[in-house]
Amino acid sequence: MKNVDLACECPIEAARREELAHLPKVVIVGAGFGGLSAAKALARVHVHVTLIDRRNHHLFQPLLYQVATAGLAPTQIATPIRAIVRKQRNTDVVLGEVDGIEMECQQVRLGERRVPYDYLILATGARHSYFGRDEWERFAPGLKTLEDATEHRKRILLAFERAELEDDPAERARLTTFVVIGGGPTGVEMAGAIAELAKKALASDYRRINPQCARIVLVEAAPRLLGAFPEDLSEHARCALKKLGVEVRLSHAVSACDAEGVTLGGERIESRCVIWAAGVQSSPAARWLGAPSDRAGRVVVAADLSVAGHENVFVIGDCASALGRDGAPLPGVAPVAKQQGEHVAKAIARGLRGKKARPFVYADYGSMATIGRKAAIADFRGLHLKGFIGWLVWSAAHVYFLIGFRNRIAVTLDWAWSYLTFERGARLITGDIAEPQRAADSRRAAA
Amino acid sequence: MKNVDLACECPIEAARREELAHLPKVVIVGAGFGGLSAAKALARVHVHVTLIDRRNHHLFQPLLYQVATAGLAPTQIATPIRAIVRKQRNTDVVLGEVDGIEMECQQVRLGERRVPYDYLILATGARHSYFGRDEWERFAPGLKTLEDATEHRKRILLAFERAELEDDPAERARLTTFVVIGGGPTGVEMAGAIAELAKKALASDYRRINPQCARIVLVEAAPRLLGAFPEDLSEHARCALKKLGVEVRLSHAVSACDAEGVTLGGERIESRCVIWAAGVQSSPAARWLGAPSDRAGRVVVAADLSVAGHENVFVIGDCASALGRDGAPLPGVAPVAKQQGEHVAKAIARGLRGKKARPFVYADYGSMATIGRKAAIADFRGLHLKGFIGWLVWSAAHVYFLIGFRNRIAVTLDWAWSYLTFERGARLITGDIAEPQRAADSRRAAA
Repeated sequence: MKNVDLACECPIEAARREELAHLPKVVIVGAGFGGLSAAKALARVHVHVTLIDRRNHHLFQPLLYQVATAGLAPTQIATPIRAIVRKQRNTDVVLGEVDGIEMECQQVRLGERRVPYDYLILATGARHSYFGRDEWERFAPGLKTLEDATEHRKRILLAFERAELEDDPAERARLTTFVVIGGGPTGVEMAGAIAELAKKALASDYRRINPQCARIVLVEAAPRLLGAFPEDLSEHARCALKKLGVEVRLSHAVSACDAEGVTLGGERIESRCVIWAAGVQSSPAARWLGAPSDRAGRVVVAADLSVAGHENVFVIGDCASALGRDGAPLPGVAPVAKQQGEHVAKAIARGLRGKKARPFVYADYGSMATIGRKAAIADFRGLHLKGFIGWLVWSAAHVYFLIGFRNRIAVTLDWAWSYLTFERGARLITGDIAEPQRAADSRRAAA
Repeated sequence: MKNVDLACECPIEAARREELAHLPKVVIVGAGFGGLSAAKALARVHVHVTLIDRRNHHLFQPLLYQVATAGLAPTQIATPIRAIVRKQRNTDVVLGEVDGIEMECQQVRLGERRVPYDYLILATGARHSYFGRDEWERFAPGLKTLEDATEHRKRILLAFERAELEDDPAERARLTTFVVIGGGPTGVEMAGAIAELAKKALASDYRRINPQCARIVLVEAAPRLLGAFPEDLSEHARCALKKLGVEVRLSHAVSACDAEGVTLGGERIESRCVIWAAGVQSSPAARWLGAPSDRAGRVVVAADLSVAGHENVFVIGDCASALGRDGAPLPGVAPVAKQQGEHVAKAIARGLRGKKARPFVYADYGSMATIGRKAAIADFRGLHLKGFIGWLVWSAAHVYFLIGFRNRIAVTLDWAWSYLTFERGARLITGDIAEPQRAADSRRAAA
């Protein structure tokens, strides 16, 4: 019967599964920077790894803002998780959504399915936080997934399309005003990229409006941008943004946000396109574990990144609240997550040999943020780079860390092309074009 | 007041608009191959062109199947319409959905908006047709837009993911069986591309299933594939597909289609992923015009492609029913649409000089279809090319006709890369992953 040998179970793999069944089980939830680095570091350890993610791809989040502003295509910053761990024969990949952990019987719950573990690594990341004003989300969406990014791309490009057809000057101004809330790296990068999109790539594509006079406002509640960077670099970023035509409002907190704009204390900025880059909130890992968490919902972990009372359960990356050598919480950036992933893998290998885990120490090689074409800032342990040199270093580092040789080439070529021509390769509006209009209309009706 | 000069109306453009206002108005609906070639051919004619499309991008439809099978990214086969006509200063682009034509007052209707015309060119293309069985669409979607393509990509990739987790061998076989209905160029290309995806790109990515034994069935009601091609090339295509492991069922019509597979007369093929590539139905142009149409809903046009009784209204491309020199209807392919676009532009230019339009004559340079890596067929006025030579010619022609220098480079590199490595660059599942599962469950519940 033809259908029988088409059941598609692989005999070689069946034998391998038999062998893996006797090994200690490590389950990793989340294939972001943390989860993936843990999985890779466990490749040669004698364990059976199951890597669970609700997406089939690893996302290179630091470049997400480029997808949102039509600079890169989604496929260029995403790599299938299976392809990454293809040669790692002790690793299974499961596409699915975890909805809880059963600590007593050591199982991860995915709907009806149960995945047993001997060691568990939670690396489920973070989402946006609206500081208790969740109703703002519909007017000012955040940027965490590819879907968020293509939605932003659509909103930004549609705003120009609608402005081109609009007869009312006030509405036209509202449509060509973009407000970015939050002056951290994502906010700075978004504001810079929107300014470049409007003033360069779209400059001569419209007949009635002039995209070059689009208004881009970056709002930050603190007295300076990029609070994690040294002051001179913050100031450089502010000047670079100003040169790009971005209005920077420091020490301004958003007091209201609706379909027609935002209010900053006494000032009203009318805008149809507001972008939220202000706060993050951890994924529900702490709730799953019933473990103590900090204000942002991150699980409080021990020095070795394990959870109190469960030395076989580790939490890493954006959903862990770990302290640095100076006693301050570690930032939610890729290098921290990656190093924590490697650390936890080592801890598990040590545990299997009967040794105790060592405390995690973050090796901070520096941090970077980009403002636009030819401008970035970088801080390497006191060595401050700015402007074009900063941008070259930023570009090289991001291409280097992009997973997959092919994506590295594609992104490099795209950047080289954009640099030479100011063009954007991914100016695509997909999905229902009527939707934002209709949504805005119904918002207006409700207002 | 800052807000005033931010109204964003361009003074240079305002002067240009004044000038254009006195020119004859040509409105083109649809920026596919036909509409775009008409717009380009009108660049130097003394008219004001308005190009209306409900998308912001021109889509290179012949490569859509590569997006559906994760070979290319959506951005690689789509180019913003505004960028294409940027330098054509007599041309406006309007993003919007036409919902009717007011023939008496010569206006195109877009919701509340009215666009007046002196000459009208309808190039609105075609959609799928289920030959009166529209209820099949949910089980066997077609392939016409980028959204269709990313939906197919999701369905195909998710089928393998779900098979990997499935314990029931019958369901696993159902999940790894793919049925393509329709043996025209799209069906042949889809079947070949799915086979290559399963047998090469995904071959070693799974642990429990072996994607190489996925079953791909191509169903055609006629006694041979690619009916528009000479018989020897049809036979070559059948053999090439067989070599790729595709089961080809000729002279088989689909008699039923549901969530668990298709029925071909007496035979039942269980499948969770059925793809419709069998029929097309014209867009509602004929209804808008109140003009006579053929069986597929295409507007019957005069020899000069104008509509009877309205010599200033032209219909071109897939929504026009024009006859070739041999009296047979012209096929719905890109070269026909392009040549018709150019013809109509010339007819309008002649009309402005008081001359009568000439009849349209299609110059058939040949046709091509590809079956997979290293195999394609081409028929150039009796010169039949097959296999690798055919594939090289096919690749060169498609890259040549892709709009935008940048996309040409990107696609060439992608193909070279895939050719060398068998990798697929765009294996991305986006959107809600739970959805197909839930949909399938509810289908099962309903069954």
